[in-house]
Amino acid sequence: MKGDGKQIYIQEVVTRDGFQNECEFVDTAKKIRLVDQLSDCGFAKIEVSSFTSPKAIPALRDAEEVMQGIKRNPAVEYTALVPNVRGAERALACAVDEANLVMSTSESHNLSNLRMTREQSFSGLKQVIEELASTDIAINVSLSTVFGCPMEGDVELDTVMSWAERFAELGVRGITLCDTTGMAYPTQVGDVIRAFKQRFSDLQMTVHLHNTRGMALSNALAAIDAGADRFDGALGGLGGCPYAPGATGNVCTEDLVHMLELMGFHTGVDLDRALSAASLLPGLVLREVPSQVLKAGKRLDLHPVSEFVRERLDSASVS
Amino acid sequence: MKGDGKQIYIQEVVTRDGFQNECEFVDTAKKIRLVDQLSDCGFAKIEVSSFTSPKAIPALRDAEEVMQGIKRNPAVEYTALVPNVRGAERALACAVDEANLVMSTSESHNLSNLRMTREQSFSGLKQVIEELASTDIAINVSLSTVFGCPMEGDVELDTVMSWAERFAELGVRGITLCDTTGMAYPTQVGDVIRAFKQRFSDLQMTVHLHNTRGMALSNALAAIDAGADRFDGALGGLGGCPYAPGATGNVCTEDLVHMLELMGFHTGVDLDRALSAASLLPGLVLREVPSQVLKAGKRLDLHPVSEFVRERLDSASVS
Repeated sequence: MKGDGKQIYIQEVVTRDGFQNECEFVDTAKKIRLVDQLSDCGFAKIEVSSFTSPKAIPALRDAEEVMQGIKRNPAVEYTALVPNVRGAERALACAVDEANLVMSTSESHNLSNLRMTREQSFSGLKQVIEELASTDIAINVSLSTVFGCPMEGDVELDTVMSWAERFAELGVRGITLCDTTGMAYPTQVGDVIRAFKQRFSDLQMTVHLHNTRGMALSNALAAIDAGADRFDGALGGLGGCPYAPGATGNVCTEDLVHMLELMGFHTGVDLDRALSAASLLPGLVLREVPSQVLKAGKRLDLHPVSEFVRERLDSASVS
Repeated sequence: MKGDGKQIYIQEVVTRDGFQNECEFVDTAKKIRLVDQLSDCGFAKIEVSSFTSPKAIPALRDAEEVMQGIKRNPAVEYTALVPNVRGAERALACAVDEANLVMSTSESHNLSNLRMTREQSFSGLKQVIEELASTDIAINVSLSTVFGCPMEGDVELDTVMSWAERFAELGVRGITLCDTTGMAYPTQVGDVIRAFKQRFSDLQMTVHLHNTRGMALSNALAAIDAGADRFDGALGGLGGCPYAPGATGNVCTEDLVHMLELMGFHTGVDLDRALSAASLLPGLVLREVPSQVLKAGKRLDLHPVSEFVRERLDSASVS
């Protein structure tokens, strides 16, 4: 599969999905500086923070300050996670471009993660959608565990489709298909994306992958092959599940962009700027990050030859 | 791309390419036990060790003891790296099934890695091939830097083809196309494999990938799509270049097998046994290993639900 210049939209979620589980609180001023850097990288969207209860996610307790402190680039959409009506009011006060709502397609995961049944979640999110209907704020719904639930296993495609249908009926702009704990594999991703695209051709579809089992980049390619053109990613590959120590998190933005651009896709992302932003992350979260390209450099970041090699190369070219 | 039961041969190189750069010397008895475990995993080949000078690669100074200490499974081919005629004699004394010869397709890398020009390497390897011609030992040649040289950048496909041609003329059984420092990307892999398969349809072709920039699994799928059916892999993802700290090494066998089997390919590898062997590695090399599936478990290794979730699931099923 060649890129042939096809546009792939990259949405950066490191300051939300990346930071939310980190033990280390990232200073508000540093978050603002990071988002400002991200704003110059060419991302289609930036998920800035989450308007959840500061008690539930203390790492993002400064959502308002961050949203109000950043410089907005008109070419970028700024989105934030909105869990309920209270969160919607906070998001509205900060004039986000998009509210990202979230629920799981598996009952166990929804109960475990959101302490509600799926029906309770849906009913709460319906209120959020109604609350924001008269505003300019676009609505995206992130459906978790689409490619598998860590407690229930496979989630039926019909189940995914029926939750998507219920949100589509409420007029949401977009739906994100989330591989929340990295259970997706390429053939499955292709099947799900093709089915989804066929049924919901008018929705903005985002694919949200985790690299828990090493397949995030392969899954991204399978998704593109099936018609996807929009991905969440987290710089540095941050965003692991707190209950899976050692496992990597979101698909690493710089690794994804590096691969896609080499293949001839057009992401619009300035990889050098993204890498420069990513290089700050170990200092912010005080641990090594899973990014490969950050460690190894781009494929054509060449190494100098040694004196031994240089002498022999020179003498060969003379002889 | 569905697997549809297609056979993919997996060759395990952890005790050679994996251990050769580790700081920690792995005890001979432990190496032997590990190879014996690998012999029961369903690998097509195991690269046991390297008959290089013990001074050059002290980590593998016990090649004879290991080769002679292991129990051979007749369903597995036992191969070893052979750098020169002296190595060939040692390999012959140990009755390896295959000698794996190696040289780079880039002059700088060959000079840097083997301290010889490519012509000097070829001439030495030609002697090895002649030395082993009258024996039962099959010959494989691993061509390094096929997908890029860390000092020179891209290597011309014609260059790769002409070195392969010269070895094919000497009657070797197989050639391995090595992405020595993880510079390959999927579209390139597809192009190279297709060209190689077309020109050398009679050779056993192996693809040797590194995950330095996170693309190893994606490259494997691109290779399969282009006709490859045989891969080297290292359990745990061991085998990083000693000059690229933090970078991962070979494509991780268990991550590769896990993905391929999910996609419907048939590797013949018993993933549980492979994971059991991989779980020993951190204790042998005294560091964490890059494997993802070893950390996260297989995708359907499910987690128990909490008491909170269980109660609500139960009450829902009653009501």
